[in-house]
Amino acid sequence: MDFLTELKARAALVDRALDELLPSEDTYPPVIHQAIRYSLFAGGKRLRPVLALAAAETVGGDPARVLPAACALELIHTYSLIHDDLPAMDNDDFRRGKPTCHRVYGEAVAILAGDALLTHAFALLAKNAQNQLAPAERVVHVIEEVAEAAGTLGLIGGQVVDTLAADTAVDAATLEYIHRHKTGALYRVAVRAGAILAGAGEDQLEALTVYAENLGLAFQIQDDILDVEGDPARLGKPVGSDERNKKATYPALFGLDVARAKAGEAVAAALAALEPFDERADFLRELVRFVITRDF
Amino acid sequence: MDFLTELKARAALVDRALDELLPSEDTYPPVIHQAIRYSLFAGGKRLRPVLALAAAETVGGDPARVLPAACALELIHTYSLIHDDLPAMDNDDFRRGKPTCHRVYGEAVAILAGDALLTHAFALLAKNAQNQLAPAERVVHVIEEVAEAAGTLGLIGGQVVDTLAADTAVDAATLEYIHRHKTGALYRVAVRAGAILAGAGEDQLEALTVYAENLGLAFQIQDDILDVEGDPARLGKPVGSDERNKKATYPALFGLDVARAKAGEAVAAALAALEPFDERADFLRELVRFVITRDF
Repeated sequence: MDFLTELKARAALVDRALDELLPSEDTYPPVIHQAIRYSLFAGGKRLRPVLALAAAETVGGDPARVLPAACALELIHTYSLIHDDLPAMDNDDFRRGKPTCHRVYGEAVAILAGDALLTHAFALLAKNAQNQLAPAERVVHVIEEVAEAAGTLGLIGGQVVDTLAADTAVDAATLEYIHRHKTGALYRVAVRAGAILAGAGEDQLEALTVYAENLGLAFQIQDDILDVEGDPARLGKPVGSDERNKKATYPALFGLDVARAKAGEAVAAALAALEPFDERADFLRELVRFVITRDF
Repeated sequence: MDFLTELKARAALVDRALDELLPSEDTYPPVIHQAIRYSLFAGGKRLRPVLALAAAETVGGDPARVLPAACALELIHTYSLIHDDLPAMDNDDFRRGKPTCHRVYGEAVAILAGDALLTHAFALLAKNAQNQLAPAERVVHVIEEVAEAAGTLGLIGGQVVDTLAADTAVDAATLEYIHRHKTGALYRVAVRAGAILAGAGEDQLEALTVYAENLGLAFQIQDDILDVEGDPARLGKPVGSDERNKKATYPALFGLDVARAKAGEAVAAALAALEPFDERADFLRELVRFVITRDF
């Protein structure tokens, strides 16, 4: 099976689990459950849950046993996108080629749908202790790490700095802060959550954390590059929006060549971190190579 | 010590714990931590955390050991107020006599401050497993219950129905749904969380749940009554806003006398539920009597 087929198979597994674990559209009050599913099933790559599954596999665990926690990470990602798109934030009308949540359901329901996804994420994390999927101690540890990664010292902190930096010149240190927190923190905790739940040792966890941090960096740089030279048809969104919005990006700060070199270095560092692992880490290896070769 | 002095002492204990458990105002990025503390220390009664402490005490536990979880409930309450006040929701400029979070910090930061409080609540709940405060199994159980109470089948569900019902005639069943979910769910889970963490037996938990449900109902009815005949100076907010906003309330639907009778019945049911408990439930007994005699 080639890597993209394998990635899609794992994403489909996540999609099925999300569908099973979320209230149906006709659950009262229906509008909120419709809004949640509208945004959640709008065509994401499911990279964060797939990372959690692959990290569990890498340390010898059963990926199926960390599915609820993996899904929780996708809920947190989706909540952050819904709130990010709101008029008071980035004021985006479209995401992945579809009208954003607040354009379809109104601002009030979009705010609440984001709140609900964030809340439900922690319900799913807690569920990972049911049916003996994982010992309660590990589940509590993961919940604490996820809350920190999603909080003001992680995702939200990055979002705050990004929002305040809009329309101002941003230096390399601020750009790095934004990326490390706004997107990096969730990749990092996705890998750590899968590994912790599967019983990783300290050394394994440390190596996987280095992998995840470099993967997140490579991913972000490639995102910035695609916004400069990507194909809108492949990406499902217009390009050039970063420049129009005067967003700080790696190509804008360093030029395309240096940005590409930095992405390459991050991939090399991620692969080096995986050296202690056997072939069960092959999916993670292919994933980080994919991140800088993808055109979508 | 009279009841109000005792209530204030417990609220002060919660305030100190909140101050210790939250990042300081100069933690980077400062604006979000300032916004969080602005709303959190705006003068709430701390009823939800106090309920959690008292429930732990009632079943023979040490209230101090459930403090992080108790504080988590106040964070969830505060997040719901910040988001509730947003222009897209109730569009309130003042709360407890002070400008609302978005009036001071802007909408983007207010949305993120709410998100951050909700996220941090789960970090605090997880913390309740540290230093052997409570066994991890109980902590996971509480996290799952809190996530459900705060989610679309609880608090958020009530908020959705309340928002959609604005400016429309609401029947008694819808009014009850809104109250039971928008405010009742959090009172209920506050009592359950304190009791579960302290090791309550099934019968104790069941009795305390009946207490909490009736306390929540009495509280809401009294809130509605005070909006009709309260003293703005005592309440710290204008009265009559429910009528101006055509909000469904108990006095509007049933008249003041029937509303008062319903509140009295709820108090009686709450007290009856506490019969199996000894004097360690006295604070809960006084609390539910206070709820319908208070004028603020």
